[in-house]
Amino acid sequence: MSLTNASPEAAARAAKISSRTLAILSTDARNAALDAIYDALSAAKNDILAANARDLEAATKSAADGQLSQAILKRLDLSRKGKFDDMIQGIKDVRNLEDPVGKIDMRTELDDGLILHRQSCPIGVLLIIFEARPEVIANIASLAIKSANSAILKGGKESTESFKAISTVISKALDSTEVPNDSIQLVTTRDAIDPLLQLSQYIDLVIPRGSNELVRHCQQMAHMPVLGHADGLCHIYIHPDVDVEMAVNVVVDSKTDYPAACNAVETLLVHEDALKTVLPAVASALLKKGVSLRCDPVSKTALSESLDKHDAAMLQDVTEEDYDTEHLDLILTVKAIPRKSDQLASVDAAIEHINIHGSGHTEAVLTESKEVADRFCNGVDAACKFWNCSTRMADGMRFGFGTEVGISTNKIHARGPVGLEGLCIYEYRIQGSGQGAGMYGAGGRQWKHRRLPL
Amino acid sequence: MSLTNASPEAAARAAKISSRTLAILSTDARNAALDAIYDALSAAKNDILAANARDLEAATKSAADGQLSQAILKRLDLSRKGKFDDMIQGIKDVRNLEDPVGKIDMRTELDDGLILHRQSCPIGVLLIIFEARPEVIANIASLAIKSANSAILKGGKESTESFKAISTVISKALDSTEVPNDSIQLVTTRDAIDPLLQLSQYIDLVIPRGSNELVRHCQQMAHMPVLGHADGLCHIYIHPDVDVEMAVNVVVDSKTDYPAACNAVETLLVHEDALKTVLPAVASALLKKGVSLRCDPVSKTALSESLDKHDAAMLQDVTEEDYDTEHLDLILTVKAIPRKSDQLASVDAAIEHINIHGSGHTEAVLTESKEVADRFCNGVDAACKFWNCSTRMADGMRFGFGTEVGISTNKIHARGPVGLEGLCIYEYRIQGSGQGAGMYGAGGRQWKHRRLPL
Repeated sequence: MSLTNASPEAAARAAKISSRTLAILSTDARNAALDAIYDALSAAKNDILAANARDLEAATKSAADGQLSQAILKRLDLSRKGKFDDMIQGIKDVRNLEDPVGKIDMRTELDDGLILHRQSCPIGVLLIIFEARPEVIANIASLAIKSANSAILKGGKESTESFKAISTVISKALDSTEVPNDSIQLVTTRDAIDPLLQLSQYIDLVIPRGSNELVRHCQQMAHMPVLGHADGLCHIYIHPDVDVEMAVNVVVDSKTDYPAACNAVETLLVHEDALKTVLPAVASALLKKGVSLRCDPVSKTALSESLDKHDAAMLQDVTEEDYDTEHLDLILTVKAIPRKSDQLASVDAAIEHINIHGSGHTEAVLTESKEVADRFCNGVDAACKFWNCSTRMADGMRFGFGTEVGISTNKIHARGPVGLEGLCIYEYRIQGSGQGAGMYGAGGRQWKHRRLPL
Repeated sequence: MSLTNASPEAAARAAKISSRTLAILSTDARNAALDAIYDALSAAKNDILAANARDLEAATKSAADGQLSQAILKRLDLSRKGKFDDMIQGIKDVRNLEDPVGKIDMRTELDDGLILHRQSCPIGVLLIIFEARPEVIANIASLAIKSANSAILKGGKESTESFKAISTVISKALDSTEVPNDSIQLVTTRDAIDPLLQLSQYIDLVIPRGSNELVRHCQQMAHMPVLGHADGLCHIYIHPDVDVEMAVNVVVDSKTDYPAACNAVETLLVHEDALKTVLPAVASALLKKGVSLRCDPVSKTALSESLDKHDAAMLQDVTEEDYDTEHLDLILTVKAIPRKSDQLASVDAAIEHINIHGSGHTEAVLTESKEVADRFCNGVDAACKFWNCSTRMADGMRFGFGTEVGISTNKIHARGPVGLEGLCIYEYRIQGSGQGAGMYGAGGRQWKHRRLPL
């Protein structure tokens, strides 16, 4: 890893060149590099925490001046209990995952002595832009090396000292391994992001990890594909047949387990027949957890009649904007879905609301009916469609991927929680024995196209 | 299918809305629509050919005025022997392919009663921009319907009458099926391309099928991902151990089978030790086929000494530009690769040339040595890597995909020949029983993450 003061173009070109060396390293060589990084970071804990303390000191001043939020300050602090150890344990976890490179997923005999196969390979050069969390640098470096991709990292300026300390250690560790030093580069140049986003000849994929603004900026400016999501505007639809206790548990978890997460629920859609049977218990539990409920007129009327006076007085009125807002806070929009003669028509009304206002991230339905669940899951347009569980399940660790690069709402390549597989693409290889295309077709040889075992 | 005079935005919005209806249709419903289109086009053959004759008449005039090439004129002509029948047979072929939608490729038990699976689903709305070939409209309509994607088609103005005739027939045929009419729209508005390329809220993927200029324009202007390739600058590297007859056959096929194709070879890299043993026979066969050879000094000297006078006199000098030019014609660049003490070092020199000048499309190596072939295939950065066969094998039909949307040199999503699979993405679904994320972790339940059979 180099901590580079090179121009964005020089850094990207160096990353591209080293990506081909990295691409052909063995699994063992890449794992050995991760072991070396783990050992070096463990040994340098004190130095890194000292550097982090300098970042914190500067940030604390900015926070006191009101220029930096307490939330960023908290994210910046590597000395919090367990955080450093979690960071380096993450390297070991990634190291121990299955190699995503070189997996064969298709083999076809095109003709005698003409065998086609498809195998996974790295994408090439990743540009990863992130904000305050200093531990991300170790996480990204390990994901990139494991998947044999070069990476250019651009971190937030609040963490500069921590980044420099960590990258110096990683760089020195890599020198003893087969992984080229240039394959992981930290760019610290101010204003490097926009120039980097134009270098599509060197950079294959951008992964922004941070605020919606950062993601949108990358989506608008990048000349190469961007992997990620801007908004996470998730819905839960409550059908009247659902078990009340389950509805309470799932909605409370979806909203309060981590309200600032992209997979937290933002809007509750409630079938008219559930407004007085299911919703009151859900609303009451949410209010108890400090959640503000922004209700449409129908749901507010129903709730006002069902809740005790104290709770009823806390209900707020929804605005049109709420339906399109990712609150990232203890605020939940509530909207009634009209009863129709056919129960599936009500489900369709919920689907329609979601497909207009949703962000394609995660949508959940709470119902006892498989027919309702299928209708909902088939109809909504989203990366994750959950029946009877929390929207918070949308997460690479929970999905069993071992790690997560982020969650994607893209419609191509990788969608939903993205693990190492999303950092790979595939290539086709043929082993032939001199065949030309002109040998085949009318009057010539016929294709066999026989699928072979992997 | 509507032949729309609506604004690009109205067309795109309508396509987005109908994409959700299309996405939930059964395999049978989509196949029935393809049957209906097949029958209707068969019945309307005379009307369509009459419309095509009007296009041809106008185009012939333009060609006479020098405003249109003979090649475009030829591509425009649907009345050429077998062309119409091939067009409608293509619809049947696509109809009979396996449904790419709803395939489950992962199932995981996250916990008791909490089952995650991943299944393929359509991308949503495709924008397909193409040039003169009128048969493309039937091909694209069938690919889109089969893969349950809405499509907006924008064709070249030379084929307007043919397009209108075909789309009127398709539109009427769809009216008798469950596929929404708006899911396939033909936009004929002049200058609609650029506005369409901005509508990322409605359009998920652009597929340009046409000239390099068209593809580059889309890549630069589109606010959504673009699938395809601009250049196809393919190389063949000849190692000295190769069988001469095989080298002749493969190189001649790669260059002359269809010189205007993206998978035709443009540059021949020849190991120094093969310049007098293998290259003369290859060069002689190519010259006999009318191929111009643009040689670097080393290869030219060697060939001049080996070929007869007549052939030697036809050799041309390479320019630096040739190394970066997709000739799409009977022209081949020839370059010698220096002998090194280690034979793999020579392979590396060929790899380096390819990774600088190649387009990531298809690269081939001709050698008897598995070690050399592996080094080459691991080292070059390309979608297709072939050992001992023609670069022309890079093709969806030859790969056994049944059909092809195009060939992609993208580094994400779909790469190489793209069949129906490239028009799909996946979604994650969970069937739970009330679980929240807060139930898991320290002191709580543990994840099972058990892979289940598909």
